[in-house]
Amino acid sequence: MPEVSDRGKAMPDSPIRKLAPLAEKAKERGVKVYHLNIGQPDLPTPPEALAAIKNIDRKILEYTPSEGIRSLRQKLAKYYHKFNIDVEADDIIVTTGGSEAVTFAFMSTLDPGDEIIVPEPAYANYEAFAIVAGAVIKSIAATIDDGFALPPVEEFEKLITPKTKGIMICNPNNPTGYLYTREEMNKIRDLVKKYDLYLFSDEVYREFCYTGSPYISAFHLEGIEQNVVLIDSVSKRYSECGLRIGALISKNKEVRRNVLKFCQARLSPPLIGQIAAEASLDADPEYMLNNYNEYVNRRKFLIDGLNRIEGVYSPIPMGAFYTVARLPVDNADNFCSWLLSDFEYEKQTVFLAPASGFYTASDKGMDEVRIAYVLKKGDLAVCLKILEEALKVYPGSKVRKSAPIKESVE
Amino acid sequence: MPEVSDRGKAMPDSPIRKLAPLAEKAKERGVKVYHLNIGQPDLPTPPEALAAIKNIDRKILEYTPSEGIRSLRQKLAKYYHKFNIDVEADDIIVTTGGSEAVTFAFMSTLDPGDEIIVPEPAYANYEAFAIVAGAVIKSIAATIDDGFALPPVEEFEKLITPKTKGIMICNPNNPTGYLYTREEMNKIRDLVKKYDLYLFSDEVYREFCYTGSPYISAFHLEGIEQNVVLIDSVSKRYSECGLRIGALISKNKEVRRNVLKFCQARLSPPLIGQIAAEASLDADPEYMLNNYNEYVNRRKFLIDGLNRIEGVYSPIPMGAFYTVARLPVDNADNFCSWLLSDFEYEKQTVFLAPASGFYTASDKGMDEVRIAYVLKKGDLAVCLKILEEALKVYPGSKVRKSAPIKESVE
Repeated sequence: MPEVSDRGKAMPDSPIRKLAPLAEKAKERGVKVYHLNIGQPDLPTPPEALAAIKNIDRKILEYTPSEGIRSLRQKLAKYYHKFNIDVEADDIIVTTGGSEAVTFAFMSTLDPGDEIIVPEPAYANYEAFAIVAGAVIKSIAATIDDGFALPPVEEFEKLITPKTKGIMICNPNNPTGYLYTREEMNKIRDLVKKYDLYLFSDEVYREFCYTGSPYISAFHLEGIEQNVVLIDSVSKRYSECGLRIGALISKNKEVRRNVLKFCQARLSPPLIGQIAAEASLDADPEYMLNNYNEYVNRRKFLIDGLNRIEGVYSPIPMGAFYTVARLPVDNADNFCSWLLSDFEYEKQTVFLAPASGFYTASDKGMDEVRIAYVLKKGDLAVCLKILEEALKVYPGSKVRKSAPIKESVE
Repeated sequence: MPEVSDRGKAMPDSPIRKLAPLAEKAKERGVKVYHLNIGQPDLPTPPEALAAIKNIDRKILEYTPSEGIRSLRQKLAKYYHKFNIDVEADDIIVTTGGSEAVTFAFMSTLDPGDEIIVPEPAYANYEAFAIVAGAVIKSIAATIDDGFALPPVEEFEKLITPKTKGIMICNPNNPTGYLYTREEMNKIRDLVKKYDLYLFSDEVYREFCYTGSPYISAFHLEGIEQNVVLIDSVSKRYSECGLRIGALISKNKEVRRNVLKFCQARLSPPLIGQIAAEASLDADPEYMLNNYNEYVNRRKFLIDGLNRIEGVYSPIPMGAFYTVARLPVDNADNFCSWLLSDFEYEKQTVFLAPASGFYTASDKGMDEVRIAYVLKKGDLAVCLKILEEALKVYPGSKVRKSAPIKESVE
């Protein structure tokens, strides 16, 4: 039997999905599992998208151009203009999800051994896509005590070597919900300029900024227009994760030329997803506002609730729909497994993503979890109760198990 | 401006798509362009698939499992059983097109520098996917004079080194239409067994075998069940190229475990494509038969027509819907460009794919083109006429330009 590849062996198990078999078993035991582990919103897809799919009047479901349907790219350009992102249809390449956009960005700019710097915790699959490209992630840990703010620029500079080709950020951030300030983005710009790096900027959560602070796109930064590769997706914005439509945006012709070759090799992004994505760009502003308000409410409810549980701490996320919280446990991986395997509260449990998988450093995030507020407030209330009860009885809990208070009986 | 990757620079331009800008310009000049360059059938998608899309009754277009929807995988298993391919749902991983299946097969089994042997001419993107994986293709040329039969096993053995990890075949073959015989497949099996190699077998055209010779799947070969990685796609079978649904099938758990990690990183194959693909498996047998008969007729018409043109030679393809033909020209790349840029016949021209792009060796296929018979007979008749007229006036034509015969006038 021939050997499988070392690269495949090096690929990380998804921190979001690796415990899924335990969740399946819990369900088989009749336990209801609340999924806060995955960024799959429960909010509806825009009716415009669903109608566009129903109204498809084609006899043949053909390939589209490798770079995506032109009318979708034109409409995306207009959408970006609303955010003062000055790009044209020709700068936009439609991809099979944001995942493919990151993969093709790396494949087109990085060679094996090249390095990129990524502030962590970070979206776990960046590491996977770096492995696909043979590139090396050099990580800088943001910390929960700083609310996951950008680490000092000096920390970045310490990591820069002749092999450094870029910096990857996610803004608003998955998994932390952090939103980079203008000042922080300017520091990143100066670094990118000084060392002539690529800036890979994943901005799929731009619609979800809650604090009144402005969303600063990488394309708002002057003087590095040729260095920016922006990653986008309709998955979260329109609750269309299953369509697999994303985009890679670059004003750098050489980059686009390389990316297009990878696009041509895989022939075409999904036709029907593109049709639905294009229709979604016409979604009623009311629809977007309702979703936005829903997340605002959930965020407040969840974070308040978490911080009320003894020993739990969550900073206040400013965007996206995640938070990374610290739990009073010995090991969050074990705790998340235990929640699915050994615990239930009124025949229910909760599926959280251990945060260790969002760090490449093996010692980070050991008492942290990522929680996605993708369920309704009523469900989140149940989840908070489950978590509270679980922490009382989890064998590795660090919450003081005080002896029951003897009440004086008169 | 930072440098793009060498890997991206090494990626080949698609031989199928690289001349597309010339075709666009021809269309702008008002010239009708017949596309025989690309495997995009003009036959209808099954009505069952179109109906399934119209009937989608979901409010949220969610991720599916990374390995694909279970009911689709179960139904695919049943489909394969009809071809005596003994696989179960658990052996099948749904991919985003056959393209992703090849990519993940390579990524999961090959490390940078590993070698695979590919008989050529071969589907051009195998080379692209090998570059993605950092793997090296060692090619053996099949020849038009042998009708593109499998080259002698001794030729394969000459190429085997400690780095050799696999053999990649496409059967029925794109671009040649060749169908490997039982004897040839057994020779491949013996090689695979002797050197413990992977056998990557792209069998997306299995429904289209025209000569009564049996279709031999790699999974029909005894004793190498753990070595086979089968590639499939619904694109050609059901004229569903735009859905982007394929499959990777392996009975080797280690391979599947690695593949699944790449699948998890990209989260999910397209939801709607999977729904439509599942419905397609219920397509009326009449539908399949009509398509089959249509290709049978086109094949005969095209090949007869080609071989009637002076200096043109096409072997008789046994399957798929392509042929590689030899043309009486100095250089088929130049000729195909010239057809689009400098030639028209009654305001029409034809887009052919130069065969050089289907060989990795730089000196092969210089007077060959791939022709896809994806258009109706009436259109093929026009294309044959265009080709005939073009060869009369192409400056690099090798057809004897005889002086006009003087007719005796009484």
